[in-house]
Amino acid sequence: MYHFRNDYSAGAHPAVLTALCATNGDQTSGYGLDPYCAAAADTIRRLCAVPDAAVHFFVGGTQVNKTAIAAFLRPYEAAVAASTGHICVHESGSVEQDGHKVLHLPAPDGKLTTAAVRAAVEGHSSEHMVVPRLVYISNTTEVGTIYSLAELRALRAVCGELGLYLYCDGARLGCAMAAGDTDFPDYAACCDAFTIGGTKNGLLFGEALVITNPALMHYFRNCMKQQGAILAKGRLLGVQFEAILKDGLYRELAARSNGLAQRAGAALRALGVEFLYESPSNQIFPVLPDGAVEELSKEVSFEIQEKLSGGRTCIRFVTGWQTTEEDVCGLVETIKKLI
Amino acid sequence: MYHFRNDYSAGAHPAVLTALCATNGDQTSGYGLDPYCAAAADTIRRLCAVPDAAVHFFVGGTQVNKTAIAAFLRPYEAAVAASTGHICVHESGSVEQDGHKVLHLPAPDGKLTTAAVRAAVEGHSSEHMVVPRLVYISNTTEVGTIYSLAELRALRAVCGELGLYLYCDGARLGCAMAAGDTDFPDYAACCDAFTIGGTKNGLLFGEALVITNPALMHYFRNCMKQQGAILAKGRLLGVQFEAILKDGLYRELAARSNGLAQRAGAALRALGVEFLYESPSNQIFPVLPDGAVEELSKEVSFEIQEKLSGGRTCIRFVTGWQTTEEDVCGLVETIKKLI
Amino acid sequence: MYHFRNDYSAGAHPAVLTALCATNGDQTSGYGLDPYCAAAADTIRRLCAVPDAAVHFFVGGTQVNKTAIAAFLRPYEAAVAASTGHICVHESGSVEQDGHKVLHLPAPDGKLTTAAVRAAVEGHSSEHMVVPRLVYISNTTEVGTIYSLAELRALRAVCGELGLYLYCDGARLGCAMAAGDTDFPDYAACCDAFTIGGTKNGLLFGEALVITNPALMHYFRNCMKQQGAILAKGRLLGVQFEAILKDGLYRELAARSNGLAQRAGAALRALGVEFLYESPSNQIFPVLPDGAVEELSKEVSFEIQEKLSGGRTCIRFVTGWQTTEEDVCGLVETIKKLI
Amino acid sequence: MYHFRNDYSAGAHPAVLTALCATNGDQTSGYGLDPYCAAAADTIRRLCAVPDAAVHFFVGGTQVNKTAIAAFLRPYEAAVAASTGHICVHESGSVEQDGHKVLHLPAPDGKLTTAAVRAAVEGHSSEHMVVPRLVYISNTTEVGTIYSLAELRALRAVCGELGLYLYCDGARLGCAMAAGDTDFPDYAACCDAFTIGGTKNGLLFGEALVITNPALMHYFRNCMKQQGAILAKGRLLGVQFEAILKDGLYRELAARSNGLAQRAGAALRALGVEFLYESPSNQIFPVLPDGAVEELSKEVSFEIQEKLSGGRTCIRFVTGWQTTEEDVCGLVETIKKLI
Repeated sequence: MYHFRNDYSAGAHPAVLTALCATNGDQTSGYGLDPYCAAAADTIRRLCAVPDAAVHFFVGGTQVNKTAIAAFLRPYEAAVAASTGHICVHESGSVEQDGHKVLHLPAPDGKLTTAAVRAAVEGHSSEHMVVPRLVYISNTTEVGTIYSLAELRALRAVCGELGLYLYCDGARLGCAMAAGDTDFPDYAACCDAFTIGGTKNGLLFGEALVITNPALMHYFRNCMKQQGAILAKGRLLGVQFEAILKDGLYRELAARSNGLAQRAGAALRALGVEFLYESPSNQIFPVLPDGAVEELSKEVSFEIQEKLSGGRTCIRFVTGWQTTEEDVCGLVETIKKLI
Repeated sequence: MYHFRNDYSAGAHPAVLTALCATNGDQTSGYGLDPYCAAAADTIRRLCAVPDAAVHFFVGGTQVNKTAIAAFLRPYEAAVAASTGHICVHESGSVEQDGHKVLHLPAPDGKLTTAAVRAAVEGHSSEHMVVPRLVYISNTTEVGTIYSLAELRALRAVCGELGLYLYCDGARLGCAMAAGDTDFPDYAACCDAFTIGGTKNGLLFGEALVITNPALMHYFRNCMKQQGAILAKGRLLGVQFEAILKDGLYRELAARSNGLAQRAGAALRALGVEFLYESPSNQIFPVLPDGAVEELSKEVSFEIQEKLSGGRTCIRFVTGWQTTEEDVCGLVETIKKLI
Repeated sequence: MYHFRNDYSAGAHPAVLTALCATNGDQTSGYGLDPYCAAAADTIRRLCAVPDAAVHFFVGGTQVNKTAIAAFLRPYEAAVAASTGHICVHESGSVEQDGHKVLHLPAPDGKLTTAAVRAAVEGHSSEHMVVPRLVYISNTTEVGTIYSLAELRALRAVCGELGLYLYCDGARLGCAMAAGDTDFPDYAACCDAFTIGGTKNGLLFGEALVITNPALMHYFRNCMKQQGAILAKGRLLGVQFEAILKDGLYRELAARSNGLAQRAGAALRALGVEFLYESPSNQIFPVLPDGAVEELSKEVSFEIQEKLSGGRTCIRFVTGWQTTEEDVCGLVETIKKLI
Repeated sequence: MYHFRNDYSAGAHPAVLTALCATNGDQTSGYGLDPYCAAAADTIRRLCAVPDAAVHFFVGGTQVNKTAIAAFLRPYEAAVAASTGHICVHESGSVEQDGHKVLHLPAPDGKLTTAAVRAAVEGHSSEHMVVPRLVYISNTTEVGTIYSLAELRALRAVCGELGLYLYCDGARLGCAMAAGDTDFPDYAACCDAFTIGGTKNGLLFGEALVITNPALMHYFRNCMKQQGAILAKGRLLGVQFEAILKDGLYRELAARSNGLAQRAGAALRALGVEFLYESPSNQIFPVLPDGAVEELSKEVSFEIQEKLSGGRTCIRFVTGWQTTEEDVCGLVETIKKLI
């Protein structure tokens, strides 16, 4: 079996696991108030070049999105997001559970445009409507595309002009950075808050939230606790993030994952396979005949992205830290036989 | 000034006001536990031919929608509605405030189709997504269109098949019934719950909620109280509804409002005015040149519906119990001079 | 039957009803954006001597408490209240529904003390606990007692010192003012927000919310709409409040209600009846033998307050604008025969 | 430094860590839909003798309490708990955040009585009040005490009689079982749902929720996802629980922790130290002079439980899987020198 279902199907990168084992016997304060979390937060502030940022560690992505948005918004305020955005589709209405509408904006390639954001704000001018206040983007997006630095800056500009917060869900931030022209300091400069995803890039679990807007920092840990989002043995997050961030492993792993996915993509393109989205990152979206998809599922694990017309199906392959070159070769060979 | 801004710009129909004055000195229990509410509920059950329905009285439309939907749904369940639906656009995210996502479905003429409902359910099959459970329709819709009996029954059928509740927001139910082929018993037969709007048809205020699905009746008054939706002097609602329902005044006023709006529409059509929506009810949506709209606003009160391309604007005229034939003539004459 | 069940068992005072009838045919903007609401708000600002206060009109008491507290607090913040407070006991958890804990503080006579407030704040110092932020008092309290001006000022001082908002639920504010040494400007000076209750003092319905703290004013109407708390024919609230406030009727009616209740209380005391609370306002709480209570209920309507030991029951008599001297005499005579 | 601050200050028991390392390279489905979670759930069902129970794995205790209570209750329903209960005090109002009031009942030794539960239900009979529906207990309690089997069964009986759910927070369930006469099947028989705490008994993190009442099982994973409570690499929970449950290690570690705490307690009692609570489990609550407490904090880590009168302070010592006999000796010797 070749595994391309997702980038969280294996455990932790060995370097991360080693760090966890090495510190297992230490006794520290709980709840993230320990030297390991302090060190990891410092590393993040250094990498992002924001000495005054607040850094918080979460176990998972839905948890951090939900907690941050609920903490940042007043009751009548709404988030806006691409209709493919994770908070729109795959978080079971967790933002709404905390009382906030999410406005779904059209975004064919999974990316919000400044025009769409502007139109949403202009279309909500009555006091009988929700007030858009937070722009949610994910980078990479849910369809593997990425925001360029210019696009990120343009969103920052429109957010500044319209009084909106810019929030970036970086569950796959490493892959976005490795595939494009953005780096940590760009997110810190453009976003009021953003996350650095660890779960999908080598950690057992972990998302780091970086808050750069001082107005959003107050009592944030109280909000976390209320959401059940403070890990008792919080240092596990600090240990893991420090292991992967301090020496650049985070970027390396992401680049490697991207490379393997792109190699598979190129090989499939050479075989005449078409793709639903133009993704430069670690998720690719080939379109195959339904019959081939069924056959393929016997030898490869993957997700169905979308049933298309004409007896075709778009599927998703994802690479991760554990993916090997052999996996990629095997995948391509398997498909070659089926089409 | 001719008043066509809305159907809640004046007070109560004289028959309603008289009933309120006649009973003003009575002393009764509060919170709707009085003989007047009991009588009005009985009248509604008789009109609807549902002897076992639960009937509750609310002050306003957002309040009843919010309370009912929050009471009916479990946390992860969602409502689906036409994207023009009142709960989607004009209730400040009140359904979301209580924790539930509202899925906005495309509906060019303001009406949900069975196909759209089915697609929404089929598109939410993962446990990481919300579970659509309640179909919200409004009749008349927000753009004046109405559901026919056949359409209502088709929605009922699809809801039955897919395990959904059908909820009809009848803020303008009288106009829908007067303009089409539906009557009270049809709503009782097709909907798990629906409202009979009084505010926009002759009452000072008041919406009656009729719940026909026994599974949705339990502890409903507790939910109302929690939402701040039980009126202390609750009998005011019973007195008013009984005044307008017992002898057919509710239907008469709605038919009269529809007739006046349609008369205005026909006259404007004769003048070559186009309309954005084909409405048979008491709201009409003419399209006028921007300049004419500005001039018109000096003599007529109305709402802007939508800015259109080509220097045109769609505006809305609404008639109510207080609208006179003179108002309609004056409106038409005023427009005639402007175009 | 003599009616002492509550102060909202009859309709509106004649002056209020007359004003409603006189303006019934007018056509105005909806949602409280009308000249009547503007005038009533101005009158309130004048009476309170706070030219910059925000004034909003609500239909009911639970609605205004719920809306204000949800608008004022951040998610992790809590209200503190006397354990007998209306939001603690009789609003079906409406504050909690919007996400906020209410800390119940002991208060034998229904009144919060500065010591209790201070202890609550000091006892919630950990970031794993809610953060007390709003002090809720009601005046008159639910057991008829009142806060003196000195007590109000002391609460203001401790709130200022501890960074708390002071909110006064004035559902029976008229009676509190008439029975004590406080007046409108005192509430404006001491509270961040307070309500002026109309429902229990001559209106069909209506509570005015006065917000004096500028930090709490932003987007408040959006919060109201989201809660379903903006009345479509909003002017009904303005018309009623103006009728009762502009010439002092509000105070007169309250003083009269207090007087009748106190007269009844004095007569009962003369008969040897004991009272559970020392109330100077329009609610009194006599303690009677269980048998007498049962007999009494055949001729007088009232509420049971609390079953006591020794075969005794505390009941509640409430007077309102509609109570007459004959009612009071009848009540006393009836009890006289039973004990 | 001797560490007695809490039972989650170190990492995982070696057996747990070994299991995590051994399975690190495996590739499985995410979100707990993997063979490891299936095996651990089976083990739990077997230990509890409930073949049809639903078993779900969570990362933390606040998360599981919040998710379960929000999933189980309708909006107007409330939980009841001892005033010392974790959900009352130390979860930042997380139950209230999801809309539910928690009624705090007096419980001097941290344990709810049937009488208190009954009184709470009887005191909430009006439809203007919340409806108590779920009884929350923790075993061991927050003050180290435990419920006996007889007490557990009595609570079950009163819950059955009054239509309440019984929920047991078993964050320290192992210690409760090891110190008393209850075992897994007793919780399955008496509770509608309960948790088996792993975080405080040898796991890196993890709480298993066992739902025995079929009415509470539906769509539970949707509720989990909405709360951000499904771990992406969910198998980490299955692997850990299986490691600690399959061969009885869970019970062994708890018994060992209890034993060390009790040994410390006995030694301190022999020195004349008094205790605020009579705890037979792994938390003990000695009372020391303030000066001694301050000195002690230089050599021992612990929590302050409560400032007492007379210059005394109650502090808390907690033992865990990592505590050694040397730690206990060191602790006792240190205190001996100070008093």
